Amino acid sequence: RINGDRLWDSLMEMAKIGPGVAGGNNRQTLTDADAEGRALFKDWCDAAGLTMGVDRMGTMFAMRPGEDPDALPVYVGSHLDTQPTGGKYDGVLGVLGALEIVRTMNDLGLRTKHPIVVTNWTNEEGARFAPAMMASGVFAGAFSLDYAYSRKDRDGKSFGDELQRIGWVGEEEVGARKMHAYFELHIEQGPILEAEGKEIGVVTHCQGLWWLEFTLTGKEAHTGSTPMNLRVNAGLAMARILEMVQAVAMDHQPNAVGGVGQMVFSPNSRNVLPGKVTFTVDIRSPSQDKLDSMRARIEAEAAKICEALGVGCAIEPVGHFDPITFDPGLVAALRSAADALGYGHRDMISGAGHDACWAAQVAPSVMIFCPCVGGLSHNEAEEISKDWAVAGTDVLLRAVVETAGI
Amino acid sequence: RINGDRLWDSLMEMAKIGPGVAGGNNRQTLTDADAEGRALFKDWCDAAGLTMGVDRMGTMFAMRPGEDPDALPVYVGSHLDTQPTGGKYDGVLGVLGALEIVRTMNDLGLRTKHPIVVTNWTNEEGARFAPAMMASGVFAGAFSLDYAYSRKDRDGKSFGDELQRIGWVGEEEVGARKMHAYFELHIEQGPILEAEGKEIGVVTHCQGLWWLEFTLTGKEAHTGSTPMNLRVNAGLAMARILEMVQAVAMDHQPNAVGGVGQMVFSPNSRNVLPGKVTFTVDIRSPSQDKLDSMRARIEAEAAKICEALGVGCAIEPVGHFDPITFDPGLVAALRSAADALGYGHRDMISGAGHDACWAAQVAPSVMIFCPCVGGLSHNEAEEISKDWAVAGTDVLLRAVVETAGI
Ligand SMILES: NC(=O)NCCC(=O)O
Ligand SMILES: NC(=O)NCCC(=O)O
Repeated sequence: RINGDRLWDSLMEMAKIGPGVAGGNNRQTLTDADAEGRALFKDWCDAAGLTMGVDRMGTMFAMRPGEDPDALPVYVGSHLDTQPTGGKYDGVLGVLGALEIVRTMNDLGLRTKHPIVVTNWTNEEGARFAPAMMASGVFAGAFSLDYAYSRKDRDGKSFGDELQRIGWVGEEEVGARKMHAYFELHIEQGPILEAEGKEIGVVTHCQGLWWLEFTLTGKEAHTGSTPMNLRVNAGLAMARILEMVQAVAMDHQPNAVGGVGQMVFSPNSRNVLPGKVTFTVDIRSPSQDKLDSMRARIEAEAAKICEALGVGCAIEPVGHFDPITFDPGLVAALRSAADALGYGHRDMISGAGHDACWAAQVAPSVMIFCPCVGGLSHNEAEEISKDWAVAGTDVLLRAVVETAGI
Repeated sequence: RINGDRLWDSLMEMAKIGPGVAGGNNRQTLTDADAEGRALFKDWCDAAGLTMGVDRMGTMFAMRPGEDPDALPVYVGSHLDTQPTGGKYDGVLGVLGALEIVRTMNDLGLRTKHPIVVTNWTNEEGARFAPAMMASGVFAGAFSLDYAYSRKDRDGKSFGDELQRIGWVGEEEVGARKMHAYFELHIEQGPILEAEGKEIGVVTHCQGLWWLEFTLTGKEAHTGSTPMNLRVNAGLAMARILEMVQAVAMDHQPNAVGGVGQMVFSPNSRNVLPGKVTFTVDIRSPSQDKLDSMRARIEAEAAKICEALGVGCAIEPVGHFDPITFDPGLVAALRSAADALGYGHRDMISGAGHDACWAAQVAPSVMIFCPCVGGLSHNEAEEISKDWAVAGTDVLLRAVVETAGI
């Protein structure tokens, strides 16, 4: 069993870095706060006797050696970056939970056959630079390093320049490491476990996603002196597209979602009809058919809406992964670990994307969920109990040790 | 007749200050570019022998003395501030046209009974600080100086601090000046004069306006892991309100408009349903009944839309003026001036708001429109011909001289 107080203290220590405005965190990727969080994590890894490797995406790999020099490592991790108004646990629990199991193994003097690598993936959130899960995506060969380096934030700063600026461009080729297995502990970010009173979600699948970035081109014109029939109103086209995305998602129930989180009007002045409106539609489903069907319908109907208004419509996919099935052997291992420890568990589909989704392309992978209050995440009010954190980390310890062999 | 080349050269000289990104201007109020524009205008006024007074709103009053020491001045002006992506003529033509008529009177050695005051009102556009026509509004007693000073831009900077920063807080009490009459030359910002091949619009009315700033409160939550039925989606409520505003405006045709130019999502991250959406609805009509009816319907229907989605809805009016009727005597003077000079003219209703709308509350006021290409304004591509500028300024000269008396 892990040391719950130590785990919780580390979570609270990390939460001091990049404080939010409402009790959560703003530790967005490649900011000064991210650099500070990385430095603290590195200190903890050093203190635990781990050897740090860093790849060219800035992903941190802290290794505890194994007994067998030829055995591939078992990777365990998640991410330390947060949303601009993010919680204290999304990602962080997975990294510090991985550190905690290694600390516990040190306490017990427990050696494994396979090495264990505590991992902090760069830019999981995708809030500052799309796509999300960027470093794990490059690791799995889904995107090139050049593509990742060229991605820009809203101020026009590139991922490559910002990684350099905070001093975390590593030497390692991205994806060169080979994995025996990959484990990720994460908060559920949904309401099911709490509602059912279960401590453990065994994640069998993850839903697929498309991020479709729309750029609508209207005609910048005076809101007062431009008659209704002379308007080329990109804002109105946007409104119709948002309503249509909602309808498409509802038509694909159950197990489908669609919504918009990012929206920018230009020039964004009260008395100017926007010349340009950009926004990102986020659609997801565990069913490949539903995902394909939603995307096709949204693109076709958006084209019609814009045509009717004379508005230009460009759509660029800026994030995508297919629905994922996690490794059945590791899934079974998690179920028995939870049973052995006496924790209530159920199988689950992840609604959010995770680095495990990309890891699953290159190694047997799996995820453990623990509950979060009210299913709330991507919100500074995100909350979990220490007991939930302990349960998830206990199951992680047991399953990792079993997989790494003693 | 005025000197068209000199007028045009001054317009082009001013357009070099605060250049835009597409051939127009970004000389927003109380920016460094605004300060530079003011300094150039002051130099020109000094060279024309005018005496500059500045009030506590930073409005510039450059006086050419009259023959009669007791006669109230005739004010002639507009504004030098622009939209973030504004044109070279919106406002500027009215200020530099006023300067040009004074320069012409100097050339001719023509003295008037009443003094003439060339005026540059602060913050007409309202792009950076709402409401628009702010300084003329304080002048007319529509807003207090404290209210104006407390208005904030999107970065949280206040009008009062920024006026201080650029060094244009004057000594004069705002509104202390009394006016014999107020004239304003402006581009039409609509398509009618060009389409009808007329050089002069005699503005008899200006439509009234409401700016309604909406703040919708939803629940910040993960776009992927939050099921459709658990969303409190402020973005969807916004989309429905935009569509409803369009429908309300269409139901009030003709002579009514409604639209949205400013929109901000918070936290504005691709995978976070917005916790807050703010936007400003701009509705206008020359009919008080239509204006009242549109506002009432929009507020009632927005409340219903939000209630159905569980979204919080707060509405703050951040700009308002009633429909304006300009002074019939001055209107008649403009018609005869245009006739005398042989320019084609027609009566018009202004779609945009202007400082003349507030001046009309405290003095006999009127406006002259000249055509602009395609009716386009609040767009860097805004364009006029030199001939149009000359025609408008010629009519301004003749009517002002007649009103000021020789
Ligand atoms: N787990 C998580 O919030 N990941 C961010 C990527 C996404 O699913 O939008
Ligand atoms: N003339 C002009 O563009 N004024 C700005 C205020 C308005 O929105 O009407």
